Amino acid sequence: MSNKKSLVYFQSGGPTAVINCSLYGVIKEAEKHPEIENIYGARYGVEGLIDDNLIDLRKQDPEQIELLKQTPGAILGSTRKKLPADDNPLFGKIIETIQKHNIGYVLVNGGNDSMDTCLRLSRFFEEKKMDVKVMGIPKTIDNDLEVTDHSLGYPSAALHIINTTKMIVEDAKAYKKGKIVLIEIMGRDTGWLTASVDLLPEDCRPDLIYVPEAKWNEEQFLQDVKAVYDKKGYAVCAVSEGMPVQHENAIEADAFGHKSMDGCCVTLAELVKNKLGIGSRSIELSIPERADPLFTTEIDQKEAIRCGVFALKSVLQGKTGYMVCLKRRPGTAYQSITFLSPVDQIADKTKQLPQEFLDDSKHMSKEFRAYIEPLLMVTKQRHIYEKNGIYKSARFSSI
Amino acid sequence: MSNKKSLVYFQSGGPTAVINCSLYGVIKEAEKHPEIENIYGARYGVEGLIDDNLIDLRKQDPEQIELLKQTPGAILGSTRKKLPADDNPLFGKIIETIQKHNIGYVLVNGGNDSMDTCLRLSRFFEEKKMDVKVMGIPKTIDNDLEVTDHSLGYPSAALHIINTTKMIVEDAKAYKKGKIVLIEIMGRDTGWLTASVDLLPEDCRPDLIYVPEAKWNEEQFLQDVKAVYDKKGYAVCAVSEGMPVQHENAIEADAFGHKSMDGCCVTLAELVKNKLGIGSRSIELSIPERADPLFTTEIDQKEAIRCGVFALKSVLQGKTGYMVCLKRRPGTAYQSITFLSPVDQIADKTKQLPQEFLDDSKHMSKEFRAYIEPLLMVTKQRHIYEKNGIYKSARFSSI
Repeated sequence: MSNKKSLVYFQSGGPTAVINCSLYGVIKEAEKHPEIENIYGARYGVEGLIDDNLIDLRKQDPEQIELLKQTPGAILGSTRKKLPADDNPLFGKIIETIQKHNIGYVLVNGGNDSMDTCLRLSRFFEEKKMDVKVMGIPKTIDNDLEVTDHSLGYPSAALHIINTTKMIVEDAKAYKKGKIVLIEIMGRDTGWLTASVDLLPEDCRPDLIYVPEAKWNEEQFLQDVKAVYDKKGYAVCAVSEGMPVQHENAIEADAFGHKSMDGCCVTLAELVKNKLGIGSRSIELSIPERADPLFTTEIDQKEAIRCGVFALKSVLQGKTGYMVCLKRRPGTAYQSITFLSPVDQIADKTKQLPQEFLDDSKHMSKEFRAYIEPLLMVTKQRHIYEKNGIYKSARFSSI
Repeated sequence: MSNKKSLVYFQSGGPTAVINCSLYGVIKEAEKHPEIENIYGARYGVEGLIDDNLIDLRKQDPEQIELLKQTPGAILGSTRKKLPADDNPLFGKIIETIQKHNIGYVLVNGGNDSMDTCLRLSRFFEEKKMDVKVMGIPKTIDNDLEVTDHSLGYPSAALHIINTTKMIVEDAKAYKKGKIVLIEIMGRDTGWLTASVDLLPEDCRPDLIYVPEAKWNEEQFLQDVKAVYDKKGYAVCAVSEGMPVQHENAIEADAFGHKSMDGCCVTLAELVKNKLGIGSRSIELSIPERADPLFTTEIDQKEAIRCGVFALKSVLQGKTGYMVCLKRRPGTAYQSITFLSPVDQIADKTKQLPQEFLDDSKHMSKEFRAYIEPLLMVTKQRHIYEKNGIYKSARFSSI
């Protein structure tokens, strides 16, 4: 039996605009290593390992592999499954898949929940004395992973949010007597994404910014938003979806057991209408925040590829139980260094906006702007469209 | 007194991605005509004529004028004001503004409601034997203007919707057991915008398309969406905001007087959850549909400029009471001809999707696809961004 081992890569958690860029990096690097027997992608995250649902990545069309760089979603499929305790029969099924395909390397591309999968797999293989190396590649638009300077996918999501917010503000300014517009931005526990709109120039930025890390006070909100509206004839607020807005305060009908699907901005919009008597509009930026391949930033794309490459090189060197992280090189121009951090420092933890990034409800601090601005340059890559204006995306065979 | 007369241009109704392109065309053409005394823009549509709120367009920075081509919103401000009957004192104020500034030409850039303003102004000036020519420039993302082949702003809005829908579908496919996703698209009375998603390739298009012109049956909807879900593990529907969805069927609490701000897809999402017991998600594409300058199509931009130019040339030739329209030249490659139509054939009328464009609830007809496809090519213009990835937009002085 040869020393060759096979590689399996999988995607986990919510998609981002650049998760398929990391896959691109992994494939391109793996092709350079004859010591890798087969290059597999597992379908639907760890479920593919459990169900022996793998596809052969060497067999994919090179043109499709290039298109990964502008393909949103998780092309291999993703999962929100959390692994149970080690004695669960699922692990027996994982061992079967590993042995059947002679897998020696596992790459887990995901966020903080997915790093728990990465941690459990690496510990399990070590305990069982199986020669299988496991490595995490960071991915989450929320930017709430510990240790790493930022998460892959965050800069691109932020750029989508910033530009879309600018469009909404420019539209809102069209009427002499406008509305109070409430823009709901992803981030259940952290305000990293919402904070990004602070970068917009003064005349087309939201008037008020609400993140979970700052104090929330409904009366203060109503007072502030009214003050802006009275002065300008319209107002725009950027609001993290995780703001602790009291739904009951806004809609009496709730007492009758109506389970609302409304987000916090729908509630705030009703509050504004009922308490201030001012027309309001709630806009949830929603899925395109994490799925827009056309606002991929130059740095996000390059780093996503580089982290994929680095993860692969690391398992080939025998490393296991780490996640690839980024830190900034000292100096004025932005440059990042890739390094490894033990995944137990990251799994299931949440990094919030530090207090020095907060200013008041109208602005983030200049430290925050210095942090995010270098990450945002749009990619120089010319996007590839069909003749009818639809962006092209990759299609794999056997999917 | 010289024969020179001044020009006033204004914007009216909902903004589009290319309304400022028509303004660009008007300014560039007007600068070539020394017989025009002053080139004015009225702020907030006809309100600027009533309130004598005009700005001098000759005084604007040429770089800002170039940026109009990628500036969303209505840079001069817009209005939803409808003009009252002729004997209203407002008309006295309009006459004052007209005389004070020696205005001989009025260009109204708007949709079907705004063409009513165009009609009333042209009739009023004729009745009063005032030498003021009035001309409409078509603008509405809804594409529901009569006579013209299509409306300026429709192709760009459609391209935004098609691409954003593709992103949402690619994201929705990521999970083995996904959701029923309901995408709400603008169009209260017509399905032109919603229909556009039919162009997407089979593997990333909505499974079901609902437009107001087709029959709506709630039971059928539930049956169809369940069939798709059972087969694929997820389903995506594109739904016109104007679908006659019965809110009461979905949320009992309504009987208690809760005035909901929910759109039809929020209602459908609750219906799916309650009646089918399947997870659902409502996504309203909202304001960016009409305000995304980055999906401006080549033809929409060029035609918006050309219609502005043509409107100006027409009033200079003494024409009044018309709207500029487009028709296709016969032949295979798309080319359009500009012509004038009396504005009373257009004002306050609504053009629906013709029956031959409808197929079944899963597809539009090939005639529809042949109609829309040539309009959609993305602009070759390279968009201009700030270094931090934010698209640039025009800023006028005195605004």
